[in-house]
Amino acid sequence: MSMVKIEEISKRIFNIFIQAGVSPEDAAIMVDVLNDAQMKGIVTHGYVRVKKYVDCIKSGGIKPAGNPKIVWDSPSWAIADGNGGLGIVIAYKAAKLAIQKAKETGIGIINVRNSHHLGPVGYYAAMCADEGMYSMAMSNGDPLLAATGSREKNIGNNPFAYAVPAGKYDKILYDVAISMGSDMKIIQMGEENKKVPDGWMLDVDGRPSNTPADYLAGGVLLPFGGYKGYGLALMVESFAAVLSGAAVTHDVKAWNTTEGASGNVGHFIMALDLEKIGGREIYEKRIEGIIDEIKSSKLADGAEGIYYPGEKERMAKAKCLEYGVVEVLPSTLKFIKDSEEL
Amino acid sequence: MSMVKIEEISKRIFNIFIQAGVSPEDAAIMVDVLNDAQMKGIVTHGYVRVKKYVDCIKSGGIKPAGNPKIVWDSPSWAIADGNGGLGIVIAYKAAKLAIQKAKETGIGIINVRNSHHLGPVGYYAAMCADEGMYSMAMSNGDPLLAATGSREKNIGNNPFAYAVPAGKYDKILYDVAISMGSDMKIIQMGEENKKVPDGWMLDVDGRPSNTPADYLAGGVLLPFGGYKGYGLALMVESFAAVLSGAAVTHDVKAWNTTEGASGNVGHFIMALDLEKIGGREIYEKRIEGIIDEIKSSKLADGAEGIYYPGEKERMAKAKCLEYGVVEVLPSTLKFIKDSEEL
Repeated sequence: MSMVKIEEISKRIFNIFIQAGVSPEDAAIMVDVLNDAQMKGIVTHGYVRVKKYVDCIKSGGIKPAGNPKIVWDSPSWAIADGNGGLGIVIAYKAAKLAIQKAKETGIGIINVRNSHHLGPVGYYAAMCADEGMYSMAMSNGDPLLAATGSREKNIGNNPFAYAVPAGKYDKILYDVAISMGSDMKIIQMGEENKKVPDGWMLDVDGRPSNTPADYLAGGVLLPFGGYKGYGLALMVESFAAVLSGAAVTHDVKAWNTTEGASGNVGHFIMALDLEKIGGREIYEKRIEGIIDEIKSSKLADGAEGIYYPGEKERMAKAKCLEYGVVEVLPSTLKFIKDSEEL
Repeated sequence: MSMVKIEEISKRIFNIFIQAGVSPEDAAIMVDVLNDAQMKGIVTHGYVRVKKYVDCIKSGGIKPAGNPKIVWDSPSWAIADGNGGLGIVIAYKAAKLAIQKAKETGIGIINVRNSHHLGPVGYYAAMCADEGMYSMAMSNGDPLLAATGSREKNIGNNPFAYAVPAGKYDKILYDVAISMGSDMKIIQMGEENKKVPDGWMLDVDGRPSNTPADYLAGGVLLPFGGYKGYGLALMVESFAAVLSGAAVTHDVKAWNTTEGASGNVGHFIMALDLEKIGGREIYEKRIEGIIDEIKSSKLADGAEGIYYPGEKERMAKAKCLEYGVVEVLPSTLKFIKDSEEL
């Protein structure tokens, strides 16, 4: 990994999106969200995506001027059409809208269709938590997971997040995909001649496998917790995509491998305003108490510590902000430097 | 297991609750919910609980006349106090209220505090789905699970459910606890001299164990999917208990082992009305399509079939209703017969 100044790389990424036809306002959102993921060490949703998003704009899969437009509205709940724009920009604006509705009525739920890859789904839940709200955020994606009992790619590795304000601990920020492990990690294990852990995948014949090559030869990812994870993937598909009127399962094309794929994925973002029920301080104190109690527990054998969801990422980000630098994969850095100089 | 007529055992259970001071209206709700769980084969939340609830009424832990009262209200969201009544009755009435608010405004969210063990949490999500709504339901409980990295009982084995209408498939009904396996199953494995599967528990020293006796000697249950499950348990604790003003973690006493424990647990029930966004048929067709596609997949090695969440339980219930009979543990049946004759 190479160390770079956040300020410098932010400018470069901003310029790349401007050159690709994105408005300054939207390019700034892209930079903010990608910076957050990169600083938190969620490298898969950080700068490495810049090239993919730009490629997708060039191939017509993403319309750089696409912006969410409300197609159905009510005081606490709305459905928006993303018009095929950048998923990150659409989800960001949807979260802003959820916050606005929650401030007015206590609840804000925004469903979005015709959107694209939204990056780190936890970002949008965190936006709500930072406004003193309990929140959930979800998105569907192209099918990668087998349903329990199946050997086919049935459903997206649909990300799910929630966030709640936590006082001195900032917030609990849970952000997970439904698979045991990601396809990117399996490919990396293959390059490093490592075995895939138990429970991660089936081979093309539907047998459990620990061999990375079996994944590329038609294998399939498994959900975490067996049928309990499979059911969560279906929840996200239902709330984020079915409810929004977005594409589902095989109608969602893998945007990063299918030329010009619009994705047409759906999101669900919910915010509940604590201001309406006594103010955030009461609830933050209670969450602080829970975290205090959990963190003071005796450690399991071999454990280094006990963390609340999002804590490690928060620490990583704080360190980056302290020094003003962030680590970037050399290949990603090269693309960013080359692109900007064109 | 003994086979009994549903009509007959329903009358007996109804009478037992009447004798315990429960109103006829509330006793009928108890019978409905317990019948549903028993017919679906969710024996742990069926008739076996009758004795436990009655014992708890006798010891003062449950006030048989307790009914939920709204303490904060808004068009789409309310907080209710259960007044220490029967959790099943309180959750049932809270779900009715969520449905009513959703019919009026599109969204109904009910938080409940000062409630008690609500039985099968999926029942309340199913009530909403049967009215053409997307729903979630959650409750916290006394601490049974270790947080990731801890060896202590940090957080409840908090049940989580969601349900969505599914046309010819009736509905998707997901209803899970957060542990890999239940304490009741571990105790049963001990009686049958069986090993506990990997990943279910730690012993008192925080080491992974497969020995049932280690659980009773101070062991602890583990969440499904490691930190991904731990985070879900915290979500339920936050949305169901913190938001409701109920007791959390160690302030929740194990009602079935602590004499007179009121529990003071909290619930969260959410309903989103499809009628407001075009009617349930559109969304049911889409879910049907997803299930059709998943069920037509090639099977994994060794799999008997591919099911959607709630399907197996639905089939079990249908068989009971067809013949008018249900299977009951002999010890449970003996208690029910003995109690009623007193």
